[in-house]
Amino acid sequence: MAEMGALYAHDDWKKEKHVPVIELEGGAVKADELFSVKVSLGKEIAHPNTTAHHIRWIQLFFKPEGDKFAYQVGSFEFAAHGESVEGADTGPVYTHHSITAQLKVKKPGVLHATALCNIHGLWESSLTITLG
Amino acid sequence: MAEMGALYAHDDWKKEKHVPVIELEGGAVKADELFSVKVSLGKEIAHPNTTAHHIRWIQLFFKPEGDKFAYQVGSFEFAAHGESVEGADTGPVYTHHSITAQLKVKKPGVLHATALCNIHGLWESSLTITLG
Amino acid sequence: MAEMGALYAHDDWKKEKHVPVIELEGGAVKADELFSVKVSLGKEIAHPNTTAHHIRWIQLFFKPEGDKFAYQVGSFEFAAHGESVEGADTGPVYTHHSITAQLKVKKPGVLHATALCNIHGLWESSLTITLG
Amino acid sequence: MAEMGALYAHDDWKKEKHVPVIELEGGAVKADELFSVKVSLGKEIAHPNTTAHHIRWIQLFFKPEGDKFAYQVGSFEFAAHGESVEGADTGPVYTHHSITAQLKVKKPGVLHATALCNIHGLWESSLTITLG
Ligand SMILES: [Fe+3]
Ligand SMILES: [Fe+3]
Ligand SMILES: [Fe+3]
Ligand SMILES: [Fe+3]
Repeated sequence: MAEMGALYAHDDWKKEKHVPVIELEGGAVKADELFSVKVSLGKEIAHPNTTAHHIRWIQLFFKPEGDKFAYQVGSFEFAAHGESVEGADTGPVYTHHSITAQLKVKKPGVLHATALCNIHGLWESSLTITLG
Repeated sequence: MAEMGALYAHDDWKKEKHVPVIELEGGAVKADELFSVKVSLGKEIAHPNTTAHHIRWIQLFFKPEGDKFAYQVGSFEFAAHGESVEGADTGPVYTHHSITAQLKVKKPGVLHATALCNIHGLWESSLTITLG
Repeated sequence: MAEMGALYAHDDWKKEKHVPVIELEGGAVKADELFSVKVSLGKEIAHPNTTAHHIRWIQLFFKPEGDKFAYQVGSFEFAAHGESVEGADTGPVYTHHSITAQLKVKKPGVLHATALCNIHGLWESSLTITLG
Repeated sequence: MAEMGALYAHDDWKKEKHVPVIELEGGAVKADELFSVKVSLGKEIAHPNTTAHHIRWIQLFFKPEGDKFAYQVGSFEFAAHGESVEGADTGPVYTHHSITAQLKVKKPGVLHATALCNIHGLWESSLTITLG
């Protein structure tokens, strides 16, 4: 069987513009308390945002330490990319590939971020969440 | 024909916990420059976040002034609500109903926010965007 | 307040290519039994499917008769529209704007279908579901 | 780095209820001609559909033979799972975890189906598409 794992690329986000950058906002994550996480692409090298080439979405998953299964945390779609009745890249709105979400966790684990470029496929990164 | 418009409720967010609150971050919005917008529920009155009752998503649309059609800006899904193999509300992750997104616009217009509660249906609010 | 209801267009699907066509498959819908529903655009007049102009998604909502709130039934996104690293409309995959879903209901009510064209905005239609 | 590939489970769909079953409808797939594909869970062993335990979505990806990147074909969300203001599993609508979509491809390749159970995580299967 062909596996999904083979479709995700990863790299150093300082060198590769498709890699989602995961940044915790605020101090230590505490069990059962809301914290903010910013996930974006292009922190170092900008990714295009045009009708023909753009980032479609960022999805987040959380794999609690010691658990068998992962949970989806969120799916964040960037829908406007300059399209209009006048043609590609003439439209009035562009959604940027960046999101700040909030969540709470009861356990430490790994936060996975995935992003889809409409022509360069699936990319991923991860961040270990420890509880302070 | 039964119309979608009749399915959306709206109210004062200071009195009603289902109404999406739209807040621009930073100063005046400028044409063709990225700005941040926070959309959340429960700024004044908290909405529950449990396996059986929670906010599923927030969607944003932009209707440029003078244009005939609206554009979808984004769809932001909150996927984790305490579910686990142990049963409802025993799980390790809850996604909060709040998002900060970034976009740029070329024209003034109206930003519409819609939110779905899994048991209390569709809610909406809007904010007029003027360019500074 | 500017309302979402004003953003949805509707028309006769035999004359307007953006209107979702809702078709029940099988005979009478029975309470608590799965039935299939096909929702598509372009049954009479084809809608384009190109990188710059296409149908993004179809969403379904159900408003039970006598209930106060509507439920979202599904959101079905059509993601591939001929994009590739070679440029617009050179890619190997196009997702068509048509879906067959299955659901069961306990009560009669109205099934609402909405569709988003990336440049012609939001469209809607509805079908009353009676139980046989 | 923790990788997404490790989060997907796969198995024989005749023995495991979480595995998406991919079925082509109609005869041989022809280049540039629409074909239908049904993707469902529970063809042999039913998966629950309750407020606390259900299938959230099926997503499809296509990896053209010889290409470097995969394309997302669609994301199909099953949104109603018996929730209501009366409590879990008292509601009037359940969306079943089954979808029939239509697409066309220019090249042979692999169609990947992924599914998310809200408590049993990510599952996958794949089907090689040859052109007749
Ligand atoms: Fe790219
Ligand atoms: Fe509610
Ligand atoms: Fe159109
Ligand atoms: Fe399951």
